[in-house]
Amino acid sequence: MRMYDLIERKKHGGRLSRGELHDMIRGFVDGEIPDYQMSAMLMAIYFQGMDEEETLGLTLEMAASGDMVDLSGIEGIKVDKHSTGGVGDKTTLVIGPLAASLGVKVAKMSGKGLGHTGGTIDKLESIPGLCTAVSRQRFFEIVNETGIAVIGQSGNMVPADKKLYALRDVTATVDSIPLIASSIMSKKIAAGSDGIVLDVKTGSGAFMKSLEDSVALAKEMVAIGTGAGRRCCALITDMDVPLGSAIGNSLEVREAVETLKGRGPGDLTEVCLQLCSHMLYMAGKGDLDSCYALARDAMADGRGLKTLAAMVKAQGGDETYILDPDRFPKAPYVREVKADRDGRVTHIDTAGCGIASAMLGAGRQKKEDVIDYSAGICLHKKYGEEVRKGDLLAVLYASREELLDGASQKLMDAYTIGDGDVEAKKLVYGQVTGDGVEMF
Amino acid sequence: MRMYDLIERKKHGGRLSRGELHDMIRGFVDGEIPDYQMSAMLMAIYFQGMDEEETLGLTLEMAASGDMVDLSGIEGIKVDKHSTGGVGDKTTLVIGPLAASLGVKVAKMSGKGLGHTGGTIDKLESIPGLCTAVSRQRFFEIVNETGIAVIGQSGNMVPADKKLYALRDVTATVDSIPLIASSIMSKKIAAGSDGIVLDVKTGSGAFMKSLEDSVALAKEMVAIGTGAGRRCCALITDMDVPLGSAIGNSLEVREAVETLKGRGPGDLTEVCLQLCSHMLYMAGKGDLDSCYALARDAMADGRGLKTLAAMVKAQGGDETYILDPDRFPKAPYVREVKADRDGRVTHIDTAGCGIASAMLGAGRQKKEDVIDYSAGICLHKKYGEEVRKGDLLAVLYASREELLDGASQKLMDAYTIGDGDVEAKKLVYGQVTGDGVEMF
Repeated sequence: MRMYDLIERKKHGGRLSRGELHDMIRGFVDGEIPDYQMSAMLMAIYFQGMDEEETLGLTLEMAASGDMVDLSGIEGIKVDKHSTGGVGDKTTLVIGPLAASLGVKVAKMSGKGLGHTGGTIDKLESIPGLCTAVSRQRFFEIVNETGIAVIGQSGNMVPADKKLYALRDVTATVDSIPLIASSIMSKKIAAGSDGIVLDVKTGSGAFMKSLEDSVALAKEMVAIGTGAGRRCCALITDMDVPLGSAIGNSLEVREAVETLKGRGPGDLTEVCLQLCSHMLYMAGKGDLDSCYALARDAMADGRGLKTLAAMVKAQGGDETYILDPDRFPKAPYVREVKADRDGRVTHIDTAGCGIASAMLGAGRQKKEDVIDYSAGICLHKKYGEEVRKGDLLAVLYASREELLDGASQKLMDAYTIGDGDVEAKKLVYGQVTGDGVEMF
Repeated sequence: MRMYDLIERKKHGGRLSRGELHDMIRGFVDGEIPDYQMSAMLMAIYFQGMDEEETLGLTLEMAASGDMVDLSGIEGIKVDKHSTGGVGDKTTLVIGPLAASLGVKVAKMSGKGLGHTGGTIDKLESIPGLCTAVSRQRFFEIVNETGIAVIGQSGNMVPADKKLYALRDVTATVDSIPLIASSIMSKKIAAGSDGIVLDVKTGSGAFMKSLEDSVALAKEMVAIGTGAGRRCCALITDMDVPLGSAIGNSLEVREAVETLKGRGPGDLTEVCLQLCSHMLYMAGKGDLDSCYALARDAMADGRGLKTLAAMVKAQGGDETYILDPDRFPKAPYVREVKADRDGRVTHIDTAGCGIASAMLGAGRQKKEDVIDYSAGICLHKKYGEEVRKGDLLAVLYASREELLDGASQKLMDAYTIGDGDVEAKKLVYGQVTGDGVEMF
């Protein structure tokens, strides 16, 4: 195989065989294929795409480029969940414990946040004592004991994705559906679960802005998951506005706890119940309707919360913070943002909220940045709500007073208050399974 | 300027400003922009193209990346000529001296051959003593004395093109018309002539296989030349079959000498007269028809040959080889290739002839390869000629007997002998000037 010939063929819209994809990924990870050839290939893929079989092949070769996790040491059906990322998205903290409390095994490896989107690992690490860097053996033990563990990626997992993503990030080749799909799915496949529920966000605050692109990405990912022999489905959920009310690490843990008590925001609760019912369905717990009822019951009677507390304890965390979230340290500086006119919230700029939260110290701009777990935002008015001038829109929390001015301006700018009615927004736009696409 | 943003914009079909092109070329030559970003940009340009103004800007920035030759030390109008390359193309050796003998100043920098196409510098260096590496001052002196000098590129000329071409060559981004046009024209503009006559080859043996692509390239190059303030035109000439009969370095010098005596092959003679008349026209020697007559007369009375001999002598070469080409050493091993059937030559595969010639030692596969100046091929039957089984098709020349078997098989395969008539081929398909395209 000559990399030159593969670039030339892809440039003209041809396809790469499985063997060629193997050699390409292996050669790239080993350093035999230089970055400048791979970036030309990535740009050619941006323009010419890859067919379903190629994308599957690329994903499997990427997954196989490092350690593949063998979860057979965990009994039962293991179901993973992945979100394409958003602001205020604490669904993992809700649906992981909920599904685990109903007998699904959740052995989850998760990531840290970067830019304006948060990461589950950061949210969990806001709980004192909780450790997300545990040995493979202890990881399995915790899942077998409590039904769930959420840890950081460890070892040499999917090095091809790390190297490819770093190159895409500097060569303007991130926004290619086969490249996005293979990047996400290679990590999910290497992580070893039997089933994968995908939460593909759509809207102005999502990576995929249009519904069409979101559905295309969901289809591609489900095809890969299915092609790799896993159970796989995707829900297309809204990220035009932030999900729930809390943005920021310990604030989001508190909101997840409230949601597990059945007292969470309506949008977050509904999205969690729907995602969770797909996890349960995948694990053979009944049809979707009865799985939804199961999830709702486990929320109502506190089983999910109990499982979250058990997981936190097993991972070395102080579970009293889960049972009594008022224990979380409060940020010393608070700023209220109020409406400057009468009207209705016609839009909330999601990325703007994420950036404001990061400005308060809740996120990182660079990998090395240290997170302030108590910083963040609580939204008090959400999309479509009526407001009067002077009404509280949101509260900002920070550990340094000087951060408040800039962040509150940013948050103020994120709110659009207009006149008249707004269109009702769907929380879940549709689902994609091996059988096809169903829009709601 | 961030290179990332420029890649992203070009990827979406946007344009780069002159200032951005300046920063990009400067940054790339200085090593601040890494190869992997430039290769992604090159692939984006392959797909999205560049408009006329962008291509001109890129060319001028490339030309300005190194030394720009100032030819004002040479009196009169300086006219350069460039061919997009072919097999058996010895036109420079004919039309350079011919134009110079009629008062045009030809201060030409030329290249070496690589692969199956020959280079003018190699052809000239087959003349004993001739030196193509002369100082800038001596170069000017020779042009002022004899009207013409042909030397190799020296100094730090167009480093941006050297670096870009090397990258394009390994990332499958050579075949982009704006990139080809800017590569060629940046060198012509840096070389400093007032006028540039372009010989854009077309057909199966040319870099541009289709007439449409050849015209597009010619238009783009003429637009650049004109935009850069030079007089510029292009002829589209045939390279579906080899030009003339000789292929190989000293063999081609001999054929050029014969052509300057008015005894050359008809196709070569006609193409040379047409190209030369454009050089003369550009230097204000009359209208195209009278320039054609001038060129034909200078061929008939030997003025062109005398100028070639004077140039060879001035460059340190033994001009007796020009006056008596039988002095060129003959290759010791000769092989005749004969027709294996009756019929008509319906095609000659040009690249096949070039490869056969290179196999005999007349070309290089790698830059370091040493050329055998006496090796090569003389074609005795050309396109459209009738043959009988056993007729001589071609004679091969080599310095090592073992090279003959493979090369003669390759040459045999290059000939197609069929039945019936063949279509008459045009030698010159059309011309492109600042006024537009005119097809013949």
